[in-house]
Amino acid sequence: MSRNKVMVVGIGPGRYDQMTIRAARALENCDVIVGYTVYVDLVKEHFADKEFMTTPMRKETERCELAFEQASQGKAVAMICSGDAGVYGMSGLILEIGQRYPDTEVEIIPGVTAALSGAACLGAPLIHDFCLISLSDLLTPWEKIARRLQAAAEADFAICLYNPSSHKRADYLQKACDILLAGRDASTVCGIVRQIGREGESTQVLTLGELRDTQVDMFTTVFIGNSQTRQIGDHMVTPRGYTSETHES
Amino acid sequence: MSRNKVMVVGIGPGRYDQMTIRAARALENCDVIVGYTVYVDLVKEHFADKEFMTTPMRKETERCELAFEQASQGKAVAMICSGDAGVYGMSGLILEIGQRYPDTEVEIIPGVTAALSGAACLGAPLIHDFCLISLSDLLTPWEKIARRLQAAAEADFAICLYNPSSHKRADYLQKACDILLAGRDASTVCGIVRQIGREGESTQVLTLGELRDTQVDMFTTVFIGNSQTRQIGDHMVTPRGYTSETHES
Repeated sequence: MSRNKVMVVGIGPGRYDQMTIRAARALENCDVIVGYTVYVDLVKEHFADKEFMTTPMRKETERCELAFEQASQGKAVAMICSGDAGVYGMSGLILEIGQRYPDTEVEIIPGVTAALSGAACLGAPLIHDFCLISLSDLLTPWEKIARRLQAAAEADFAICLYNPSSHKRADYLQKACDILLAGRDASTVCGIVRQIGREGESTQVLTLGELRDTQVDMFTTVFIGNSQTRQIGDHMVTPRGYTSETHES
Repeated sequence: MSRNKVMVVGIGPGRYDQMTIRAARALENCDVIVGYTVYVDLVKEHFADKEFMTTPMRKETERCELAFEQASQGKAVAMICSGDAGVYGMSGLILEIGQRYPDTEVEIIPGVTAALSGAACLGAPLIHDFCLISLSDLLTPWEKIARRLQAAAEADFAICLYNPSSHKRADYLQKACDILLAGRDASTVCGIVRQIGREGESTQVLTLGELRDTQVDMFTTVFIGNSQTRQIGDHMVTPRGYTSETHES
């Protein structure tokens, strides 16, 4: 393994076997693993001989600088992200901050983001065109989020929502559903997955009308079907297209 | 491993180390691997002791029935999909057809879809809210695809395009770019990745105006930035939000 290298590694939902073989090899071959405390705890037992360095949730810039500083000392550094490195992950900030460290190579190792791992738990909600939207307005004005929800509903995309709730934003999923209900039928098939790939994983298939009045937590990923999405048994299934057997809206 | 089971396995872009550990274990533990010829060829050498069964590209229903028939004989069957099982993959059709085989258990094992693996090659184009749109009008009317492109452009989503071209649809990417250019600046940062994770992998960062006049093939995945996406060196990077340093549109 070459030195002066920062790898940004998507570890998937959390369980060891849900990361790619390439991600596991990167963690085996690195010297130090840098990450948010919760993610480091997820991998620690499988890579016990590594040096671990953690920073709190919102200290992303500091975490990236820490990774480059460690690499500058000649260590191979793995910065871990839950899910994918490139979907609401750290790969972008690493590349931005990396401009200040031109001697350090950056490698990005993708992983299974919650939209995909959650979809597999529910059935097949995202088989066709879909949008991924975060309801967190920490770095994005709510008006922009609202506009995206509206556009997604009008163009009949299946939708996956990240960060549907937090202590400060307890009513955001309800607000989002109200926007979607303006363009989508209340009977639209939806699904929620809690604790994907972790202890206590659970799924629920419900209607958009019911979803509006459901309280979810920050460990939940939400799926909204398109006009063709159906419930099959306990599963949420979107067909791959709009054939003659289905009802084009 | 229990019998009478069909596993739908996303194998990622193709190289063995890009599948998850869970996917590799599923293939190790199954009796028969069913898939489209090209995907079977990608995994064959790593699971040489398995029985392989292939069907051509568009025979998806027959492929699913074959999987269930094999499972009915008491075999553990793995149906493989490139990328993810649930993004333009086979998990939906397996669950639909599975209604006819109530004694067979279905397990869906997610993988890294081309949007994520291609993004990692380019840098970080999909860090924030994005849409995934297929330009194939085989099962979806072009009017619906056009409406989604328009909605995605207007709401400032980053966009990933699958199936941007084929022999019969040589001008579809150009048509798509013309729709996007109505709502997005011609200087918008875009990227293309060819042969993700396979021999001959290559990336190119270019503007939306340039993309319009670029000929791509069916092994290409296309990325269109949002209003904040920048080129950093050879990389395409979308920031995680709209902070005071960036220019809100």
